[in-house]
Amino acid sequence: MQSVMTEQAGGAIRRIAIFGTGLIGTSVGLALRKAGFAGAILGWDPDAQALAKAREMGAIDPASSSEGANDPFIQAAAANVIVLAGPVGGICEWLQKLAVVLSPGQLVTDVGSVKGYLLDEVGGLYNGENQPGYLPGHPMAGKERGGAELADAELFRDAAWLFTTPAAAGDKTISFEDVARHPLAAEWMGWVEKFGANVLLLGPYRHDRLCAAVSHLPQMLATALSSLLEAQLEQEFAHEAAAFRASGGKALREMTRLGASPWSMWRDIAITNEPAIGSMIHAMEQQLSHMRENLRTHELRTMWEQGNRFRENLPGR
Amino acid sequence: MQSVMTEQAGGAIRRIAIFGTGLIGTSVGLALRKAGFAGAILGWDPDAQALAKAREMGAIDPASSSEGANDPFIQAAAANVIVLAGPVGGICEWLQKLAVVLSPGQLVTDVGSVKGYLLDEVGGLYNGENQPGYLPGHPMAGKERGGAELADAELFRDAAWLFTTPAAAGDKTISFEDVARHPLAAEWMGWVEKFGANVLLLGPYRHDRLCAAVSHLPQMLATALSSLLEAQLEQEFAHEAAAFRASGGKALREMTRLGASPWSMWRDIAITNEPAIGSMIHAMEQQLSHMRENLRTHELRTMWEQGNRFRENLPGR
Repeated sequence: MQSVMTEQAGGAIRRIAIFGTGLIGTSVGLALRKAGFAGAILGWDPDAQALAKAREMGAIDPASSSEGANDPFIQAAAANVIVLAGPVGGICEWLQKLAVVLSPGQLVTDVGSVKGYLLDEVGGLYNGENQPGYLPGHPMAGKERGGAELADAELFRDAAWLFTTPAAAGDKTISFEDVARHPLAAEWMGWVEKFGANVLLLGPYRHDRLCAAVSHLPQMLATALSSLLEAQLEQEFAHEAAAFRASGGKALREMTRLGASPWSMWRDIAITNEPAIGSMIHAMEQQLSHMRENLRTHELRTMWEQGNRFRENLPGR
Repeated sequence: MQSVMTEQAGGAIRRIAIFGTGLIGTSVGLALRKAGFAGAILGWDPDAQALAKAREMGAIDPASSSEGANDPFIQAAAANVIVLAGPVGGICEWLQKLAVVLSPGQLVTDVGSVKGYLLDEVGGLYNGENQPGYLPGHPMAGKERGGAELADAELFRDAAWLFTTPAAAGDKTISFEDVARHPLAAEWMGWVEKFGANVLLLGPYRHDRLCAAVSHLPQMLATALSSLLEAQLEQEFAHEAAAFRASGGKALREMTRLGASPWSMWRDIAITNEPAIGSMIHAMEQQLSHMRENLRTHELRTMWEQGNRFRENLPGR
């Protein structure tokens, strides 16, 4: 797509509020500063320690002494752009609360991993006449553990940052105009490009299926494998636990690393993207069944070479 | 287990022949030299280039000028220990051929990934009265690509090197005496310890189920995932291929890295360990089905935390 980079000198975004200062929210603050954002960065988190850490790291501004400055509604009222960076369930709640207090000149954007669900729940509350703007976003970046202390201004460099339309778009290809309807949307996308991320546009339900394939399915597989092996360790291999654990090499560590992902990060994704994730898991069950029935036939070779092709064309190996 | 390290000064192993000078065979030669083996290291490979590379790297001795020195049967006749380091099918053929030409004082060992199959095929040809010795071995080390040029004297450091009995042992726990029946077996295991590997003992069929769980299943999953995603790219996501490939982050690269493994390395494993691999894949299908049916229930959390436990106790994270 064409670059969305705009002239920032005359940018209209002067105050940004980040709700949720975990790994992603805090990294957004750090990336804004590194990219030269000179306005105010307000911040709020239900966890006072996470908020203090984000301040200490310079991701959000020092606490104001004025009364009420730490109140999220007062912050939201003062900001041009509100970035929602918690789990999907929390993002949804904030989208509902903010819809009734913000003005049309203000823009909400988010970093949630699921988009169709949010659209279904709150799509009608935004982007209409006299409604505030909502620009649904999703940076494809993270670490296997969360927390402000792991935040990094470079977290988004070379990663994809998906944006989608705030209205149902079916499966049709969407344009920049579909996405950037709000006056501040292009400017926010320009900052995201300055973070080093690659901006990509997708319809919301396509987004959810694509993320189910490239992100949620790999996580589910790692969890299913890790839990299966733990069950085998406790049962069949109870007397050989040391050999079992010691025998797995780099391949086993790699294929189960995501098995360490915290439940808190994935609960909302599993629930809110259940149709797409369920469909991908089902496709994987069928793939494994086909593989199992063909361990001795030429079909396994066909599957193997198809897998080799996927890897050959995957960037950033 | 107790150390199998023995006094090497008076070692009886003076000449070792390595058949198969790919990644593992060549690394064995390099590791022997690094560990101080001062005897002769002969070598043979059906691929003259691989053989030349192993010589060039110093893993096997320079070619002898005497006639017939490159003949594997002449090498085998001259060696105290013959290390078979090709694919499982090739190892099986050599075990059959060598059984009739070696003497009881000679020992064959191998590095094959499957043990029960070899035992079924050739177990009766070794370790009996007037038969040569066979010590089935399996280093749990490798790289995603093979080849002498990737060989490394340190490949086995901190990796497990499994040894098993050359006779059926059922599922019972086996002892060092069960494994090291041949006079040269303990000395060879001592060299393996000098490579930095951790020697572990397992019955042959237990070995195969354990390897199916910690090694073969992770590979099969990576191949199934890579091939499934390639099929989706070619079909459902044909119009969004760039976004699809760009959206996968570290997690996707990691979960599909083994998808690049060459078919030639896995064909024999899939065939010769088919019962154990098939059983593990089937267990994984059931695990995924259970996960899919419980994306919205508390059961997913139970599975998640079981996966977390596996990772917490896995060494070498």
